[in-house]
Amino acid sequence: MTQAARPARGRGPGRRPGPTETRETILAVARDLFAEKGYDGASLRAIARAAGVDPALVHHFFGNKEGVFIEAMRFPVDPAVVLPRVLASPRDRLGETMIRTFLEVWGDPDRRAPILAMLRSAMTNERAAALMREFITSALFGRIGQATGVPLLNAQAAAGQMIGLMILRYVLQVEPIASATEDELVTLMAPTLQIYLG
Amino acid sequence: MTQAARPARGRGPGRRPGPTETRETILAVARDLFAEKGYDGASLRAIARAAGVDPALVHHFFGNKEGVFIEAMRFPVDPAVVLPRVLASPRDRLGETMIRTFLEVWGDPDRRAPILAMLRSAMTNERAAALMREFITSALFGRIGQATGVPLLNAQAAAGQMIGLMILRYVLQVEPIASATEDELVTLMAPTLQIYLG
Repeated sequence: MTQAARPARGRGPGRRPGPTETRETILAVARDLFAEKGYDGASLRAIARAAGVDPALVHHFFGNKEGVFIEAMRFPVDPAVVLPRVLASPRDRLGETMIRTFLEVWGDPDRRAPILAMLRSAMTNERAAALMREFITSALFGRIGQATGVPLLNAQAAAGQMIGLMILRYVLQVEPIASATEDELVTLMAPTLQIYLG
Repeated sequence: MTQAARPARGRGPGRRPGPTETRETILAVARDLFAEKGYDGASLRAIARAAGVDPALVHHFFGNKEGVFIEAMRFPVDPAVVLPRVLASPRDRLGETMIRTFLEVWGDPDRRAPILAMLRSAMTNERAAALMREFITSALFGRIGQATGVPLLNAQAAAGQMIGLMILRYVLQVEPIASATEDELVTLMAPTLQIYLG
C-alpha cells in the first residue's frame, strides 16, 4: 500500500512493485515451491525465477535459502487463530474441535501450502525439522497441552494423528481418505482425538 | 533401460564378492541413503561411493536411480510377516497387536531404514509416493481391512496414526514421544487404533 515511489535498495528505476510487495511475492512463491518440492528440492534460483526477480534480490532480502525458508515458514498455522478456537471448546468436544479446525485450515490451499512446505522439508532437512519440532512442542500442540492439562505425550499423539492424516490426504492422496468429506473425517477421528485430549 | 550385455546374476565366481553379494550391498547402502536423505537427496553416484563400487556397476545392475529405489524399497515391512500376526489377534485386541508389531519392527534399525526411506522419499517424489500408496492400499493396511472387514477409510486412519507416530518418533525425534517406551506407546495408542479397527 505505502510503497516508495522508487525502490530504495539496489534496484533500477521504473514502475515496479515496491520492496515490501516484492518480498511478499518471493515468500509466496517460496512457500509454494517448498510445499511442492521440500527444502532440498527448491533452489534459491528457482524461487527467484518463479517470483520473476533476480536471484541477487532474493539474496539481498533473505541472505540465503535458509533465510527465505525461515521467513516463509513463519506461522504456517497461526497459533493465535487456531489456539483460542480449540481452547474455547468444551473439554468433551476437544477432539472434534481440533479435527474441524485443522480440516478447515487445510481446506484452503493458501493456508495448506506453508504447512505442507514445512512437513515435506522437515523430512530431510534438519533446519526445517527443528522448526517443526518447535511448532509441535511449543507453538501449538504444546500450548494446547499446557492450557488443558493434557500430558505432552497425549498432545503429541494427537499431533501425530493430524500429521498422518495430512500425509495420506494431501501428500500421498490415498483413496478413500483423500476424497472423504470433512464430516466423514470428523466422525472418524474426533473420538480417537478425544481419547488423547479428554 | 536395456543393457547391451547383461551377465547372469547371482552366479559369480568366488574370488571377489559375487554379483549377488555386491547387488545386496548396493541395496543395503541405498536403503540407508534413501532413509537419511530421501529419494531426491540420494544420488546414484553417492550410493556407488558408499557401496565402494563404480557407478557404472550400479547402472549395470539397476539401470538408474529409480531402479535402485524400487528394488531397495521392496517389502519395507514384509506383509507376509506382519499380516498373519496382526490377523491372528483377537478382534478386540487388534489395535494393541498392530501398534506392538509396528513398534517391534521399527525398533530394529535395519528394518526401520527402508520404511523411513520410503516415507521420506514419498514426500517429494511421485514414484516413491506411488509405492507407498500401494503399500497402504494393497500390500498391508488394505489387506488388514479386507481380512477383518474393517472399512478402508478406518484402516487408513490407523495407517495415518502409525505414519504420524513414525515421523514424530524417528524423523523429528520430538520429546517425549521419541523416548517413550514401547509399553507407554501401546497404552497410549492401542485404544485409539482399536476404535478404528474394532
